[in-house]
Amino acid sequence: MTVYLVGAGPGATDLLTVRAATILGRADVVVHDRLIDPEVLALSADGAELIDVGKRPGGSSSQALINDLLVALGRRHGCVVRLKGGDPFVFGRGGEELEALSAAGIEAEVVPGISSAFAAPLAGAIPVTHRGASFGVSVVTGRARNGAAVDFRRLANSEMTLVVLMGVERRADIAAQLLEGGLAPETPIAAVESASMAAQRVQRARLDQLGRLEVRAPAVLVIGAVAALELGRVLEAAGLASA
Amino acid sequence: MTVYLVGAGPGATDLLTVRAATILGRADVVVHDRLIDPEVLALSADGAELIDVGKRPGGSSSQALINDLLVALGRRHGCVVRLKGGDPFVFGRGGEELEALSAAGIEAEVVPGISSAFAAPLAGAIPVTHRGASFGVSVVTGRARNGAAVDFRRLANSEMTLVVLMGVERRADIAAQLLEGGLAPETPIAAVESASMAAQRVQRARLDQLGRLEVRAPAVLVIGAVAALELGRVLEAAGLASA
Repeated sequence: MTVYLVGAGPGATDLLTVRAATILGRADVVVHDRLIDPEVLALSADGAELIDVGKRPGGSSSQALINDLLVALGRRHGCVVRLKGGDPFVFGRGGEELEALSAAGIEAEVVPGISSAFAAPLAGAIPVTHRGASFGVSVVTGRARNGAAVDFRRLANSEMTLVVLMGVERRADIAAQLLEGGLAPETPIAAVESASMAAQRVQRARLDQLGRLEVRAPAVLVIGAVAALELGRVLEAAGLASA
Repeated sequence: MTVYLVGAGPGATDLLTVRAATILGRADVVVHDRLIDPEVLALSADGAELIDVGKRPGGSSSQALINDLLVALGRRHGCVVRLKGGDPFVFGRGGEELEALSAAGIEAEVVPGISSAFAAPLAGAIPVTHRGASFGVSVVTGRARNGAAVDFRRLANSEMTLVVLMGVERRADIAAQLLEGGLAPETPIAAVESASMAAQRVQRARLDQLGRLEVRAPAVLVIGAVAALELGRVLEAAGLASA
C-alpha cells in the first residue's frame, strides 16, 4: 500500500535511477505523464496497468483529478507508481500529490530523478555552470499560474545562467523583460527542442533575437554566457548532444 | 579509449542512473571525489583501480592535476570513469575536464546524475519548487573563486527559492547581503547537513538567524518560503527525509 512518486529523468531509459527501475519492475499500476518514452514504460512489471494522465493544453486531467486517482489507487493496490518526467519536485507538482496522499493517510515515497532543467541544456551541449561563465543557475517556468507570472526583469543577472522551462509561447515577452531588466542585447541564448529525443534541435542566437526565433515546444531556453561556450560545440561535434 | 564523466547523484547507491552503474561495472580505473560512498565504489568492475582525487581545503589535487591525470589514463586504458558527486556539470567542473580531454584528442562521454542542489533539499524534506511558494529556484555556490564571489544582494528575490552549495563558512555574510538586498528578516531558511547520509541533520530558522546558526559542512542552505512548508514536516514524519 505505497504510492511511489518517481522521477523518470530526462528521457533515455537508462537515465532512470536504479531505484526507479527496480520499483517500476514491481508496479501494479503506473500513472504516467504524456511524454514518458514507451521504452521506459516497458520496464513496468508484466501485467501492470498503465494510465496516461498527460495533461494536454486545454485537456481534462486536472491536478485535482490526478490527486484523487492516486488516492483511490493507493487504497486498492500494493504498489502504485506515479511516473513523472524529470524530477517530481522540480516543477513536477510532486508536493501537491504528496500532500493529497498524506491527507488521505496513504503511505508515499519519493524517488528523485534527473531534472530536465539541467539535463536538457546538457543534451544540447550546454553546461549550466562553467568556470568563468556563470556563478550559478536559475530555473523558472515561463507559464503563468492563477494569473501570476514570473517577473523576468528581476531575473536579469549577467552573472547567472537562466533556464526557462515551458517558455516557448512567452519567449518574446521574456526577452523583452530581460532586456528591460538590464541584460545586454547580445547575451547568448539557446533553445533546445525535444531534448535527448531523435527530433532534438539546438538553436543558438542573441537575446534580442529570441522573440523572432522559430521554436517548437517542448523546448528549454538557456540564457547567458554558457549558451555560447566553445565547449558546447566540442560536445556537439563529438555527437554527445544526444547522450 | 573513452573517459566517462559520470555523476554519482546525491549519495545512495541506488540513486545512480542505470547507465552510470553499467559503465562503472566495466571500468578499468575509477577517478573519484572524496565524498563518494564506498558502496558506490563497490559497483566498479573487479580489479578496477580506484584513485581518490578528493580536493581537500588546502590540499594538493588541483583541477589542473586532475585534468592531466584523466588525459594520461585516457591514453592507457579502455574505460576510465571520472566519478563525481551529484552532476558533473552542475558546479562539478566537468566542463573543464571535458575541454582538457578534447584538447588532447581523447574521446569523452558525459553521464548526468541527480544534482545535490535539488536532491539535498528533498532529502531534508524540502521541495525546491512548490505551487504558491515559489516561481522557481536559483542555485549558487557560496565559495569565491579567483577573488570573485556571488553578489547575494542581487539574488534577493522573495518569489524564488535560493539553494546555496558550499555556503556554510560564508553564511553570516550571505544572510547580511540578502537582507541588504531586500529579503525579509523572517524569510524561512533551512540548513541540510550531510544530506541522505546517516549523519543527516536538518535545521529550520529565519534568515536573520542564519549567521548565528551552528552548521557543520557539508551542508546545503535553502532560503525561501519552501523551507517552512508543512509538506516538509509531513515528509519528515513519514521517514522520507532519508529516502
